[in-house]
Amino acid sequence: MVKEIIRVAMGVEYEGTAYKGFQKQKNTSNTIQGLIDNALSQVANQKIKTTCCGRTDTGVHAYCQTIHFNTASYRENKAWVLGGNSLLPKDIRFIWAKKVNNDFHSRYSATSRTYRYIIRNSFIPSALNRNRQLWIKEELDLQSMRRASLYLIGERDFTSFRSASCQSKTSLRNIQSIKIQKKGELILIDIIANAFLLNMVRIIIGTLLDVGTKKITPKRVKFILESMDRKLAGKTSSPEALYFVRATYLKKFKIPTVSNFLI
Amino acid sequence: MVKEIIRVAMGVEYEGTAYKGFQKQKNTSNTIQGLIDNALSQVANQKIKTTCCGRTDTGVHAYCQTIHFNTASYRENKAWVLGGNSLLPKDIRFIWAKKVNNDFHSRYSATSRTYRYIIRNSFIPSALNRNRQLWIKEELDLQSMRRASLYLIGERDFTSFRSASCQSKTSLRNIQSIKIQKKGELILIDIIANAFLLNMVRIIIGTLLDVGTKKITPKRVKFILESMDRKLAGKTSSPEALYFVRATYLKKFKIPTVSNFLI
Repeated sequence: MVKEIIRVAMGVEYEGTAYKGFQKQKNTSNTIQGLIDNALSQVANQKIKTTCCGRTDTGVHAYCQTIHFNTASYRENKAWVLGGNSLLPKDIRFIWAKKVNNDFHSRYSATSRTYRYIIRNSFIPSALNRNRQLWIKEELDLQSMRRASLYLIGERDFTSFRSASCQSKTSLRNIQSIKIQKKGELILIDIIANAFLLNMVRIIIGTLLDVGTKKITPKRVKFILESMDRKLAGKTSSPEALYFVRATYLKKFKIPTVSNFLI
Repeated sequence: MVKEIIRVAMGVEYEGTAYKGFQKQKNTSNTIQGLIDNALSQVANQKIKTTCCGRTDTGVHAYCQTIHFNTASYRENKAWVLGGNSLLPKDIRFIWAKKVNNDFHSRYSATSRTYRYIIRNSFIPSALNRNRQLWIKEELDLQSMRRASLYLIGERDFTSFRSASCQSKTSLRNIQSIKIQKKGELILIDIIANAFLLNMVRIIIGTLLDVGTKKITPKRVKFILESMDRKLAGKTSSPEALYFVRATYLKKFKIPTVSNFLI
């Protein structure tokens, strides 16, 4: 008798501070995927290899990363979550699990991804959130940053906003929205796109910060985009202020949405 | 020539996790006041002894603790803040400084203090905020907790809600309000009183959680209060979820209000 292979999707929250990014690597066991695969393999009592919707960099956090895997081991959704969590460090938590059809793929079925970048724009950095936000002392010109962000909306070639080591075949990506909100001393920048290139969010943020601090004009961002030259864009902003918020999928997959409270 | 003695008030934000509480102690240098007095003494180039408005316990945080001290060293407000911060660990930050009249006293002039307790009421604990919130899995009955909290409003004898080691002469305190809000999976409990006894907020929270999980009825809280017996109240809830938010003062003192964004 051949066991049926099932596919399971899960949501994962993590603080990225202690890890060398999401993706499993040969030379270190200190990756989120490495720990997750190991925990799920123990729950399944067979080797599990997960795939994710957004491979976050070293130090980047996630409110809800979506992953999936195939297995011949049937477990209750609750058992994947609670069993998995019992084998993980406390800075990584499975938040839900769900059996899905084989046509669901955490990466290829995702219709969009949302990232959030958190800046504290204040005279003094925060004691309580010092490792979770980027502190900027100079007052940022949000109107100019919003104007600049409009040049990046739509399907564009983001060659200027990708890391030199990015291996994606195409540099075309479609940004649906960039929302810049002020809440007290915090500035929250939410970027939604079909997908992102390596370091793309952080290079966009670095460039928008150059606009906010008046090093460059909003219009200059259009020129940087069109020049297709990474050297003209701003620097890659630091990872500790970046959060993978969620991926969205077609309704038919019935993937749970994150109910976690976001600032 | 005798130097004029001036009085300076300052606001301090801190993450309490690493410290043995606010108050200076003989047997450890690891207190917030110990580090603050030391930093300010270096800035003043003379011994500084601070007084605060709320002596927080081990592990409790502060958005804005108010302190004051006397000194014969004149410094710009900015110098107290920036000079002090340069000598402090990053989990303690001076956020403002202000020269005040000698009739201002951070403790005795405070007309009220506000504490916030943050609970995550969810099936799975948070990875990102695991050290900042109390995780409760059972669904809390907020209506019952709100009903129970009403018995504690006004000037009452809080003998049942003080630590055995509390040294305050009187156990009368006046609670102005207890606000229980739900924001997504978070429950925020804000308590405002003229002042608090040792562990009072945490014992109140522990007792309200007994109501929320239906171990006791709301009415039972009235009985506990009137019995004046600490053993009847709930346990002292854990400190990592407790935040000293602010103290308020008469307008004439022109003490800055915190503009930090609170969740």
